[in-house]
Amino acid sequence: MKFHTEYLWFTTKKRRDYVLITDDVQAAVTKSGIREGMVLVSAMHITAGVYVNDAESGLIQDIDKWLEQLAPARPDYLHHRTGEDNADAHLKSMIVHHQVICPVTDGRLDFGPWQQIYYAEFDGQRKKRVIVKVMGE
Amino acid sequence: MKFHTEYLWFTTKKRRDYVLITDDVQAAVTKSGIREGMVLVSAMHITAGVYVNDAESGLIQDIDKWLEQLAPARPDYLHHRTGEDNADAHLKSMIVHHQVICPVTDGRLDFGPWQQIYYAEFDGQRKKRVIVKVMGE
Amino acid sequence: MKFHTEYLWFTTKKRRDYVLITDDVQAAVTKSGIREGMVLVSAMHITAGVYVNDAESGLIQDIDKWLEQLAPARPDYLHHRTGEDNADAHLKSMIVHHQVICPVTDGRLDFGPWQQIYYAEFDGQRKKRVIVKVMGE
Repeated sequence: MKFHTEYLWFTTKKRRDYVLITDDVQAAVTKSGIREGMVLVSAMHITAGVYVNDAESGLIQDIDKWLEQLAPARPDYLHHRTGEDNADAHLKSMIVHHQVICPVTDGRLDFGPWQQIYYAEFDGQRKKRVIVKVMGE
Repeated sequence: MKFHTEYLWFTTKKRRDYVLITDDVQAAVTKSGIREGMVLVSAMHITAGVYVNDAESGLIQDIDKWLEQLAPARPDYLHHRTGEDNADAHLKSMIVHHQVICPVTDGRLDFGPWQQIYYAEFDGQRKKRVIVKVMGE
Repeated sequence: MKFHTEYLWFTTKKRRDYVLITDDVQAAVTKSGIREGMVLVSAMHITAGVYVNDAESGLIQDIDKWLEQLAPARPDYLHHRTGEDNADAHLKSMIVHHQVICPVTDGRLDFGPWQQIYYAEFDGQRKKRVIVKVMGE
């Protein structure tokens, strides 16, 4: 059995941003030499998410607006008593979920035609990290 | 180490529908001969979800109504500028999440008494697919 | 390849509660002897969740209040026709998601500095269970 671990680093210019990482994950799978198995793609921060959905710019704006409605940035969260101002980013990360597991078949991400992996940043403008761990044979 | 991959196909009659697939997933586990490991059950579309919850018809109606409140079907999503009309289905899929990993112990889904696996269709009436990948020994 | 399975039991005093379980999961990883792999942490009930986020009491209160806004306890769910009164707990569990997969590298949970694993109880005051399954080498 083989394992291969990589870390992807992100410093987004905007506080909230959505970064397409499908090719980076496929590159890690290819590098691993694993033909059959799974790859875990998981944010190492609690104010970011990883999700699989469409690479369509209108939809990404819809997602961003919708997340802001469901988990708005507001001053009055209790978390802000610690000096933080990013409670909304924690909540947004919970809706989106911080990780996905992608199936690997025959050395490729075994995806449907429209599936793309995104890193969702909700409190950016600083260095953050995602772990990519491939596991299989 | 063993791997076993199957694809389940769905064409729901309704646009939104909830299909119980626990037995299909257990059948894939049994067929694999894997006694110990995990099974990934993951939608291959970005307008569908897979979740584990109760097989109770009232609750399923509650879930459907609640998802429509949190992510309503509306004409004014930016995604619809592409000609699509299913932005709400993408958002519903994000809440529900598009995949689960089920533990396998002694050849069986290692579930609590009420856990059932559902395929959640949010933009149906056409052929769609779920990957079931068992991994273990 | 090695597997190690444990079950964590919870009986919370409050109906809704958030229990830090990072150390329990790390203990299971250590006991397994697995140096490289993944650990699945998954609620075996449909009214509870497992998530990774911050161990900060203000934020936990924010999360609890926010979940109650998104999926309020109310009498009028259809699920309650069965005699149950916990439909909101099912919906809360769906938002939070009932499971996480944690990467294991060099025998440790391969986490960022603020990541902590929580068991989220939404219908407690009775015995409930989480499966912890470590898989790797």
